[in-house]
Amino acid sequence: VPTVRVACVQNDPAFGARDANLDAAEALLDGVEADLVVLPELFASGYSFRDRAEAEAAAEPFPDGPTVRRLLAWSRRRGAVVVAGFPERAGARVHNAAAVVADGRPLACYRKVHLFGFESDVFDAGDDGFAVVEHRGLRVGTMVCFDWIFPESARTLALRGADVIAHPSNLVLPWCQRAMPLRALENGVFTATANRVGTERRAPRPALRFTGGSLVAGVDGVVLASAPEEGPAVLVADLDPARARDKRLPGGNDRLADRRPHLYGSHTVSSKDA
Amino acid sequence: VPTVRVACVQNDPAFGARDANLDAAEALLDGVEADLVVLPELFASGYSFRDRAEAEAAAEPFPDGPTVRRLLAWSRRRGAVVVAGFPERAGARVHNAAAVVADGRPLACYRKVHLFGFESDVFDAGDDGFAVVEHRGLRVGTMVCFDWIFPESARTLALRGADVIAHPSNLVLPWCQRAMPLRALENGVFTATANRVGTERRAPRPALRFTGGSLVAGVDGVVLASAPEEGPAVLVADLDPARARDKRLPGGNDRLADRRPHLYGSHTVSSKDA
Repeated sequence: VPTVRVACVQNDPAFGARDANLDAAEALLDGVEADLVVLPELFASGYSFRDRAEAEAAAEPFPDGPTVRRLLAWSRRRGAVVVAGFPERAGARVHNAAAVVADGRPLACYRKVHLFGFESDVFDAGDDGFAVVEHRGLRVGTMVCFDWIFPESARTLALRGADVIAHPSNLVLPWCQRAMPLRALENGVFTATANRVGTERRAPRPALRFTGGSLVAGVDGVVLASAPEEGPAVLVADLDPARARDKRLPGGNDRLADRRPHLYGSHTVSSKDA
Repeated sequence: VPTVRVACVQNDPAFGARDANLDAAEALLDGVEADLVVLPELFASGYSFRDRAEAEAAAEPFPDGPTVRRLLAWSRRRGAVVVAGFPERAGARVHNAAAVVADGRPLACYRKVHLFGFESDVFDAGDDGFAVVEHRGLRVGTMVCFDWIFPESARTLALRGADVIAHPSNLVLPWCQRAMPLRALENGVFTATANRVGTERRAPRPALRFTGGSLVAGVDGVVLASAPEEGPAVLVADLDPARARDKRLPGGNDRLADRRPHLYGSHTVSSKDA
């Protein structure tokens, strides 16, 4: 697999103005040449749904909705993989989802596994887990925003062979941008976090300020490219997928093969799902 | 459980000079009042064993060896939990171990699960997993050095109820000090990394420089106390164990209860131990 270029789009959507938000994202992408394009969580719909009915009204089927159709067109024009968040309607369920499309074809729809805060009032948690798709030899895993804080999310994607984790986000807590280089390091993968900026005031919900700082991190825990905390931006970085397929560290250990799962308690302890 | 004080000892041992290293560590601890004292990995023996025979010669049984007897004395005098690394002989096996003692009594002997680099030439990997001990209401988990890079180590300890992770270390890679605040955050635990300083030149092994920077991290991902990169030091921090028992984040999510283990692939993928 040759070197690939990843682009993260950091946008500033207006709540509910889907078509204008799509046009603005398309303008940001104008002239950007990339093999993988990542856009934020719910990048065209906005985030702060007041209630379930509002989320249902905004939700679209996959892949036959207006947002995903636009993503398909972008991916066709560029020959790229495009990963972007949108509200998905699936029968009676509504998911905080990320479409994964390439070359004009739908590849996967990831349904956010770990809902953040109020999201569980308006979305159904995804029950399909984490998936990796391969396109032109590049293996792309997807997680959304708050999934990052559970190390199991990125770990699962790495164990399933991801070279790069596409990470559409709407971050409001202060930690993720600092943490992603470690997620990349501990798994020996690249990460591409596309975060939004701006503030949503959707009373009675508290105002939410999104923190920008979109970033691409490398397998050795470095920041390869990052965007400012404020303002729309597109950042690009070139990745060598071969570096994600050699998990060795200085000293010779293998970040995945040297795991000792029978000594980990993570599946033996009660949880909501156990 | 009231607030507890943790102390991390950052020492500069001379390879093979066990008794002098024990005296120097005792001098560093003089006048330090703490409920939990953490010393580095192999803090009295030194690290760079040239071969198995050299490690066997240095190894001691638990708890009836000269290093652990000294730890027991320190713990009795202070009424504290003491966690410190030593080479353990157990029958024909030799482990890179950490003794956990309190009030003059042995509580546990942790045998390093993830050996780093050449360590697997001279030590046997631990097969007993990760344990949490409780003393005067404080729940102390132990991991050693390179265990940190596998998020499963700290996760397992958190799932088993640790309030604080004692982390004896001999760090030579550049990442751990930056990573530990994230380990604390993602698990909602305190971490206490006691690292050594100095350089060992034990040809034909490459010279190893140990990176100091011992630190205590808090449940919200902050550094509560840290030591310089060079020179012996003792750092102290006060911890409220109640903060490690409330795993909620801003927004209301619970860092452990909101895990969704049936959607994680970590146990389904082959590894050396599977």
